[in-house]
Amino acid sequence: MKQYTWGIIGPGKIANKFALALPLAGNAILKAVASRDITRAKTFADTHGGAQTYDSYKKLAADPSIDAVYIATPHSYHAEYGLLCLRHGKAVLCEKPMALNGAQVSEMIAASRLHHAFLMEAMWTCFLPLMQRITDMIDAGKIGKIKYIRADFGFLAPFQPTSRLFDLRLGGGSLLDIGIYPLFLCLHLLGRPDNIRAAGYLAPTGSDESCNALLTYNDGRSAVITSTLACQTSLTAEIAGTEGAIRIPSPWYKNDRFAYLRAGQPEETIVLEPMVNGFEYEIREVTRCLEAGLIESPSMSHAFSLTMSRTMDEIRRQIGVRYAVD
Amino acid sequence: MKQYTWGIIGPGKIANKFALALPLAGNAILKAVASRDITRAKTFADTHGGAQTYDSYKKLAADPSIDAVYIATPHSYHAEYGLLCLRHGKAVLCEKPMALNGAQVSEMIAASRLHHAFLMEAMWTCFLPLMQRITDMIDAGKIGKIKYIRADFGFLAPFQPTSRLFDLRLGGGSLLDIGIYPLFLCLHLLGRPDNIRAAGYLAPTGSDESCNALLTYNDGRSAVITSTLACQTSLTAEIAGTEGAIRIPSPWYKNDRFAYLRAGQPEETIVLEPMVNGFEYEIREVTRCLEAGLIESPSMSHAFSLTMSRTMDEIRRQIGVRYAVD
Repeated sequence: MKQYTWGIIGPGKIANKFALALPLAGNAILKAVASRDITRAKTFADTHGGAQTYDSYKKLAADPSIDAVYIATPHSYHAEYGLLCLRHGKAVLCEKPMALNGAQVSEMIAASRLHHAFLMEAMWTCFLPLMQRITDMIDAGKIGKIKYIRADFGFLAPFQPTSRLFDLRLGGGSLLDIGIYPLFLCLHLLGRPDNIRAAGYLAPTGSDESCNALLTYNDGRSAVITSTLACQTSLTAEIAGTEGAIRIPSPWYKNDRFAYLRAGQPEETIVLEPMVNGFEYEIREVTRCLEAGLIESPSMSHAFSLTMSRTMDEIRRQIGVRYAVD
Repeated sequence: MKQYTWGIIGPGKIANKFALALPLAGNAILKAVASRDITRAKTFADTHGGAQTYDSYKKLAADPSIDAVYIATPHSYHAEYGLLCLRHGKAVLCEKPMALNGAQVSEMIAASRLHHAFLMEAMWTCFLPLMQRITDMIDAGKIGKIKYIRADFGFLAPFQPTSRLFDLRLGGGSLLDIGIYPLFLCLHLLGRPDNIRAAGYLAPTGSDESCNALLTYNDGRSAVITSTLACQTSLTAEIAGTEGAIRIPSPWYKNDRFAYLRAGQPEETIVLEPMVNGFEYEIREVTRCLEAGLIESPSMSHAFSLTMSRTMDEIRRQIGVRYAVD
């Protein structure tokens, strides 16, 4: 069985989680790490049992021994480095958000098709056992027809103009960084909304400190999503249907348990298998897709990422967050 | 100490709860019950230890032995019967919503002032020990500055065109019936919003089956409220501040316990005194106000009811729910 070799671009905190899960995901090994700061790359490689290090992303992208690249830079570089790797024929797992806006995502998808190179947004929550189980239960009619979804993701991040969370040039703002989790849940279960009504509050840098959005559907379904860097929210999600509900306690986006409620029956808590750190499932999905010769994941498709990005474009338009590339 | 004598207009389910709490609220006794269906009035009076019965609201309003009237009819009659009682100088505790729109509420307030008769919206949640404690804690800075509030109230009510929940002529719709609870919480703690963005879904009768609204404030605070008759929601509320959060489990609007969270400290559950059914606190508030010779409650003021009603007017305008009196 082929071992897929991975390179990492942007060896930060999130890449560290990824590298911890990589050897436990099966058929995947860390082969190279690139950072413009070579010391950072070397420290990272040492921490994770050794790997080739590069002081340039181009060199990593050009390394013929690498099958797949995980891009974990600030959001504003996703498109550039994603395209770089795709053009070298690498499979790309790109941290969420795939890019800053729908136009960039479209360009990346086009490159994936042109070069027949795999491309997937690292929306890891999608592949967790919890999300798989919930999706199966909903498909099986366990909560009837979904009428309402609510999810939040908020924590307190003191304002710093140069922090990637707030710096507009780095794709700062709550929506792209954490609001994408509740957005994913809603779009995954409900599809593209017919209507969006959003309200946000902008930090002095012009990025969104907080963002609330109502997603509504012409058949009466609705969803409410919240993201904020101004306070700690409950990190819970609920999916309410005509015959039952699913409620995911904190932290909903990476939990291994949830509550299933059905009218007239006692609440049931469903506990799933223990996880490494949750990243292993998206890595396995990449392996599966590469083994099958696919250029996109059926579960986290190009079209889905484009819909997420375009929905965020519309939300940002309404709340007045504009990136230079828009 | 004076015993305040109460009359009840509209002896239905909610009036039953009220009558159960009345003798336990102190200084309050049930004196009369009016229903256009005299049998209904008699049955109700019998259930609650006997009381004068009337087959007309006018007769009850004209009964000189009655100090205060509790109005528990469908929403669409609140203004008419409230005005009737105020004009007879009765103190009026009017079920929420006070009336169908801001114009009606204004008229009731004007009558209260003209006749120097007490008027209060029966927003009972406001007077519960939980709400008092939470308000005190927030005023004392226990969660810092509030940044975000979220609350929902939804249950599954199968559509019936003639049900008061759906019939536009009876003031049907989720917002006025149950959305007013989350709205109360937000306005109570945050004041009048600077901006409202709402989305709803209308039943075939034109009333709102569901309604979501974003309330935002120019200083960055925000609130999200949900009401729906299409599914059972979690019935939870959260209030998140810069230094902590308060989370109220189901059913948040009548609970006797809540969780207090502060960064770096273990979650604390605060349990309050046992309640009769929660209605006793609003009754005691009326007694206190009458003893003090007031025509409005400082805690649930005329101005507050008017703000709630006008906020609902704006939400209804946005979602397209229009009552005949609008």
